[in-house]
Amino acid sequence: MPSESEIISRLRKRAGVNDEVRLGIGDDAAVIKTTAGKDLIACCDLMVEGVHFRTEWTPPRLLGRKALAVNLSDVAAMGGVPKFAMMSVALPHKCSSEFIDELFLGVFELADTSGVSIIGGDTSISRDSLFIDISVIGECESGNAVTRRGAKVGDRIYVSGSLGASALGLSLLEDGYRLNDLKDPTDAMRQQAILKHLTPEPQLKLGRAIGEAGLATAMIDISDGLSTDLWHILDEGGCGAIIHSGNIPIAACLFSLASETDRVRLALQGGEEYELLFTARPESHRQVAKLSEALGATLTTVGEITEEKGLQLARGAELETILPSGFEHII
Amino acid sequence: MPSESEIISRLRKRAGVNDEVRLGIGDDAAVIKTTAGKDLIACCDLMVEGVHFRTEWTPPRLLGRKALAVNLSDVAAMGGVPKFAMMSVALPHKCSSEFIDELFLGVFELADTSGVSIIGGDTSISRDSLFIDISVIGECESGNAVTRRGAKVGDRIYVSGSLGASALGLSLLEDGYRLNDLKDPTDAMRQQAILKHLTPEPQLKLGRAIGEAGLATAMIDISDGLSTDLWHILDEGGCGAIIHSGNIPIAACLFSLASETDRVRLALQGGEEYELLFTARPESHRQVAKLSEALGATLTTVGEITEEKGLQLARGAELETILPSGFEHII
Repeated sequence: MPSESEIISRLRKRAGVNDEVRLGIGDDAAVIKTTAGKDLIACCDLMVEGVHFRTEWTPPRLLGRKALAVNLSDVAAMGGVPKFAMMSVALPHKCSSEFIDELFLGVFELADTSGVSIIGGDTSISRDSLFIDISVIGECESGNAVTRRGAKVGDRIYVSGSLGASALGLSLLEDGYRLNDLKDPTDAMRQQAILKHLTPEPQLKLGRAIGEAGLATAMIDISDGLSTDLWHILDEGGCGAIIHSGNIPIAACLFSLASETDRVRLALQGGEEYELLFTARPESHRQVAKLSEALGATLTTVGEITEEKGLQLARGAELETILPSGFEHII
Repeated sequence: MPSESEIISRLRKRAGVNDEVRLGIGDDAAVIKTTAGKDLIACCDLMVEGVHFRTEWTPPRLLGRKALAVNLSDVAAMGGVPKFAMMSVALPHKCSSEFIDELFLGVFELADTSGVSIIGGDTSISRDSLFIDISVIGECESGNAVTRRGAKVGDRIYVSGSLGASALGLSLLEDGYRLNDLKDPTDAMRQQAILKHLTPEPQLKLGRAIGEAGLATAMIDISDGLSTDLWHILDEGGCGAIIHSGNIPIAACLFSLASETDRVRLALQGGEEYELLFTARPESHRQVAKLSEALGATLTTVGEITEEKGLQLARGAELETILPSGFEHII
């Protein structure tokens, strides 16, 4: 079977789009022109049992919430505002009525607080796995969508929040830790990591503000990991980047629960963070800082865009090359 | 586990929608107001292996085509024009590269001939079954969407095409017949039935023309069967209907392959026809006939809307009551 990126690359080549489509397959979301001074933003995200989640460690309410959250994060990464959602759910027979109610409750709760209307969907029996696919329609001012393409040499690279906790949370869940049965003194840290994994917060206000201010030259949400998602920006922009290891904002829980080596690895490669990664001209830095302060959002400069292609990690004077597949020591 | 209709009913009650949503959960598609004189139409349809299809009798190209076709049929049933589609696919490891290529080819071919741009999607591994969820965004003139609600006492009930072949095709597939290995003299009829099941034709031109002419008081596509889908219109309109058994357009292949009793049963209850079912004022009949002629579309009056609730099937002077669950002899 071909890899996901191979499939996407084939689809992208094949898709014939009409001139109302500003941006088709291959970004966080698609962008459609309308005649009303607004562009539509559309995306969908699939969550499959055993691949994206396990029901034994994910309460259904948090699962429903996350299925919508990952879509809202895509809209945020375009600088847009989510408006409408549809959800398709294939339910195996094992799902109780309570499980289903809680699953949908999780979706509706986040929809309500995000100003999103659930306008439709489809349900089916499934022979085996639970399958959730949510699609979201949002909008932005005409021409204002922030794509993955556009990073320029000299741009600073920014990351919101802190990184590594989601991947740590997943490994804790795999090790048998659960959300509500943590008892020893390091519980609070484990809880923080597991919560980051199970209830990611889409950066809607931040994404929208960046989009409206026209501050970012490129933007993406961190779903595959900082290094992999930055590679997408570099690929689209035909440029390279250097990241300063010491500048990466590492989640607090990693300091008590992970070794120094693991901290950088988790923060660099850990997926499902749903933080925003964007590039901006150096002269925009003051504006970025103001926006960060106004929203109470943590934004950190982790590196800059370089002419030389490839992704380098600087640890003091030492440079390591990072490959698209993740974190690999070459030297 | 609650039934699909129970789940939809709960979701419909729960969904808080904002005032841009003209129509939310519960119709063939949702309708969203825009400020550009157009309404958006949005829907999604899920196809699950072992529930909606079997790979052993569905060539992947036809499967991809059908996954899009059932969505286009929903847009047709709103009187709209489909514009954009996104597809999420969860692929089990057994899927070969060729299978995947053919699956997407089927989607793209129908998208191309229908003027639909594939703008995005998501792919994932699946542990077991193949899942395909497609969502479509279309449009219609502001306020012109034809919903399931609106049938009035005295309205005539129309059906496009002929009925029963899809259900017969499914039972032939279940009996071991396949698309390309039919050899005896009744092959052509079996082929017709199987093709109707595997390659349904969304009634896009007809649906759009009915919507633009404002001819229908209510419309739905026949996915669950004539009687069940008519029940949806009756439920929404708070009315009843009488269907004249002799007027039901029965697919030609049923005359050589099904008994007289089975013919009516299949035409009345058989799902996945993707023909249009609509109601119109009797004074619109001439216009309906003109439109039918202009498009070369077969339209048949099968009955009329009554004040008395419930659905009756008239066979000569005999009346049979038909329950929402399907075809049941009460007398």
